[in-house]
Amino acid sequence: MKSASDVFKEIDLLFHPRAIASVGVSHKTGNMGMDFLVAIKEQGYTGKIYAIHPNKKIPGIDTYPALTDVPGPVDHVLVCVPARLVPGVIEDCVKKGVRSVVIFSSGFGEWGTEEGLLLEKEVARIAGKSSIRLIGPNCMGLYCPDSGLSFRSDLPVIKGGKIGMISQSGGVAQTPVFTGGEKGIGFSKSISYGNEIDLGAAEWLVYLGEDPATEVIFLYIEGTRDGTALLHSLKAVAGKKPVLVVKGGKTGAGGRAVQSHTGAMAGAGIIWETLCRQTGALLVDDCNEMLDTAMALTMTQKPRGRNAVLMSVSGGFGVMFTDLLEDAGFHVPELREPVRNDLRKCIGNPGTSIRNPLDMAGSFWEVHNFPNIFKLLNDEDDIDIFIIVLAMEYLALAKDSDTVVRLSNYVVDGLIKGLEMVNKTVMVVFSETYMSHHRLELEKQIISSGYPVYPTLQRCTRALNNVIAINKID
Amino acid sequence: MKSASDVFKEIDLLFHPRAIASVGVSHKTGNMGMDFLVAIKEQGYTGKIYAIHPNKKIPGIDTYPALTDVPGPVDHVLVCVPARLVPGVIEDCVKKGVRSVVIFSSGFGEWGTEEGLLLEKEVARIAGKSSIRLIGPNCMGLYCPDSGLSFRSDLPVIKGGKIGMISQSGGVAQTPVFTGGEKGIGFSKSISYGNEIDLGAAEWLVYLGEDPATEVIFLYIEGTRDGTALLHSLKAVAGKKPVLVVKGGKTGAGGRAVQSHTGAMAGAGIIWETLCRQTGALLVDDCNEMLDTAMALTMTQKPRGRNAVLMSVSGGFGVMFTDLLEDAGFHVPELREPVRNDLRKCIGNPGTSIRNPLDMAGSFWEVHNFPNIFKLLNDEDDIDIFIIVLAMEYLALAKDSDTVVRLSNYVVDGLIKGLEMVNKTVMVVFSETYMSHHRLELEKQIISSGYPVYPTLQRCTRALNNVIAINKID
Repeated sequence: MKSASDVFKEIDLLFHPRAIASVGVSHKTGNMGMDFLVAIKEQGYTGKIYAIHPNKKIPGIDTYPALTDVPGPVDHVLVCVPARLVPGVIEDCVKKGVRSVVIFSSGFGEWGTEEGLLLEKEVARIAGKSSIRLIGPNCMGLYCPDSGLSFRSDLPVIKGGKIGMISQSGGVAQTPVFTGGEKGIGFSKSISYGNEIDLGAAEWLVYLGEDPATEVIFLYIEGTRDGTALLHSLKAVAGKKPVLVVKGGKTGAGGRAVQSHTGAMAGAGIIWETLCRQTGALLVDDCNEMLDTAMALTMTQKPRGRNAVLMSVSGGFGVMFTDLLEDAGFHVPELREPVRNDLRKCIGNPGTSIRNPLDMAGSFWEVHNFPNIFKLLNDEDDIDIFIIVLAMEYLALAKDSDTVVRLSNYVVDGLIKGLEMVNKTVMVVFSETYMSHHRLELEKQIISSGYPVYPTLQRCTRALNNVIAINKID
Repeated sequence: MKSASDVFKEIDLLFHPRAIASVGVSHKTGNMGMDFLVAIKEQGYTGKIYAIHPNKKIPGIDTYPALTDVPGPVDHVLVCVPARLVPGVIEDCVKKGVRSVVIFSSGFGEWGTEEGLLLEKEVARIAGKSSIRLIGPNCMGLYCPDSGLSFRSDLPVIKGGKIGMISQSGGVAQTPVFTGGEKGIGFSKSISYGNEIDLGAAEWLVYLGEDPATEVIFLYIEGTRDGTALLHSLKAVAGKKPVLVVKGGKTGAGGRAVQSHTGAMAGAGIIWETLCRQTGALLVDDCNEMLDTAMALTMTQKPRGRNAVLMSVSGGFGVMFTDLLEDAGFHVPELREPVRNDLRKCIGNPGTSIRNPLDMAGSFWEVHNFPNIFKLLNDEDDIDIFIIVLAMEYLALAKDSDTVVRLSNYVVDGLIKGLEMVNKTVMVVFSETYMSHHRLELEKQIISSGYPVYPTLQRCTRALNNVIAINKID
């Protein structure tokens, strides 16, 4: 068995090809062979790019009739021809000595036909004569903003991302990248691997486990051909880095859907729950929960315990969110009297309360007090977690949107400055109410300052509970 | 005891005052007496408006030194003076023969001081000499876009809204109005009633139960002085209209927060759960769940059962959301072979699946097929609910945002046209991924066409389960 560092070295080369060729390129709208080339060109890939077409010249791209006609080396090949033509392309890849092939084409094992299964075997047999690594078929391949690999020209390009994604579904490999990108949260890699003829979940896990750029690993998996290898990988990797798993096809109907999708055997939910518990990986429900948890894991301190201070402008939301925190297993302890006496000097407007939750009312606009307030709370041993509740309608009461923008920027700037005093867990709940566009700008500002932001208290507590479970804090 | 229709007639007058006076008006920024007057002026109130100030003239507003100096009738008075001055103002209100008074001022029972409690009693005693109805103290008062009443000049003004809100918290009385307004969902009324010296939850419930403009009632309540009256009201009203309740202070820490907020006795969660179960009201967790449920209740058919057809562009999300639907108690039955054969004529692109979930892949852009597809599915007795899954990255694959806008508009237009074939429950899940601003425009378009939209599958199933519980469908 290869060592983890050998797996890393071998696979990491695939993310840094010297030249990429696309087979199955045409001018028709929606031609994926062409779209893939445009994507890598526009997303920062700086190596050589070739199109392969038997008898047409693709304008603006070096075109050759066959892969074997390309004069220089080709490390990575994208295959978008009909399934029955794929074996011939792989023969050429072997002759050309390429490192890796992404087979986008569908019509293999996922169709459940004898022909599809035979084609898969044939492709594997041909590639097996060489050291070529296959990705797919029925997949989107590799996204890596640091080296310019991509499969859509509209994917966000954020360098230095910390989340590594492994997905059996091409859609699931993209959506969290878009969602994260909208808020300024980047991915180190996203891997859409499809039917795993060759490279599969187990090996990708080992790779990302060794990858220094990746701090948190997402796995969307429907099924695997080698459960034992997956078990070993999960155990080895989840011991080093958080691994968040969405298992597609946990339920009966979901399992049937998997058959039509990747052709994998789905396996019951209970098996996967046990698998995750044994290995230390964490089963989550969807991509939002993955991203929410990754934010908490990578952006703020681990909580030392479950005691939270909750700061809100509205007394009613303070009450409601205190209930939700307690229901989710957290505590909102009453602050000690000496602290309350000190806080009272900074939070004195009518309608305020300082017992915890902190009901800030008008004192929320006196941002010069935030450093003092946060220093006092940070010094309290009894407080592990800061939860700051924002909403556009708290941040500025004004009719004209220019004033709202100016005032809310002022408060958020002050808040971020104040939070510098805090070296405990900080979570921001920024409710989605109105002026969504400006809310998103403020959310990005808070995130870029290093604090995770959630649209609801429930998503915040879910992420916190996941961090606590992963770090075995309870 | 007054009949429900008498209660309605008496209270409905309060929403249609001929003239409104504000006591405690000044020019200082943040003066609420002034802000309230600006709010009603700008939000469409067409009656007479007066400011009361002992020795200054407020520019642009008819100002008098005392309420009793106003020449014509005054029906509704807003009181923003310090608590100790409130009894004197109420004396003047009695002399002037006003119908209703909103006491914004805080410093009464919610402070837990003897002085505050005595002031409440004094105010109640003075008003008791007349037929004046008191709202508050410690509240924001009345919002009614149909008659121009409001308490913030930036609240959305949407006529014909169907949701009536009763809230003990001023913050909670506003936030759902903003959130709904952002999507084009209106409120018939929002009532912030605070400490309920006089008008309280029980009477407001009876009023909204009779109000023909209100189809769904929200109640945010921390505590009440008259549990028996509340029980009777809930029972009577929840039998006629859906009543969704958020109980603030269900937990120990939440109850402590309530004491600092409205001074009410909170009462344990279990009591409120029992109360709701006995009366047919539905306990929900927060304002999002209230709005989500209200959308499903007012905009689409009641489901006849729990069988759903799920339509998505991405196979992976089809699988994931099928699991989530099954986990939430719904079924995603395999479609019958004859239906699949007919669907196959419309959904034929590579990568599609038509067993249910429907994995549309490229066929999602062939919008001319939507009417046929939806007609076929609507005719299936086995299907009760349509769940359509959207996300910006499915709606258009393009780098330039103009093309994304054009293509996504095209698909959503086609979808809405196709859904005209459907007379069953329709729920749209429109994931929040990227291009949030345009996503919101499309969300508003879908909502204005009559279909509820949710940001996550979980919020969609939660709302559906609430509709099923309220209508006792299981």
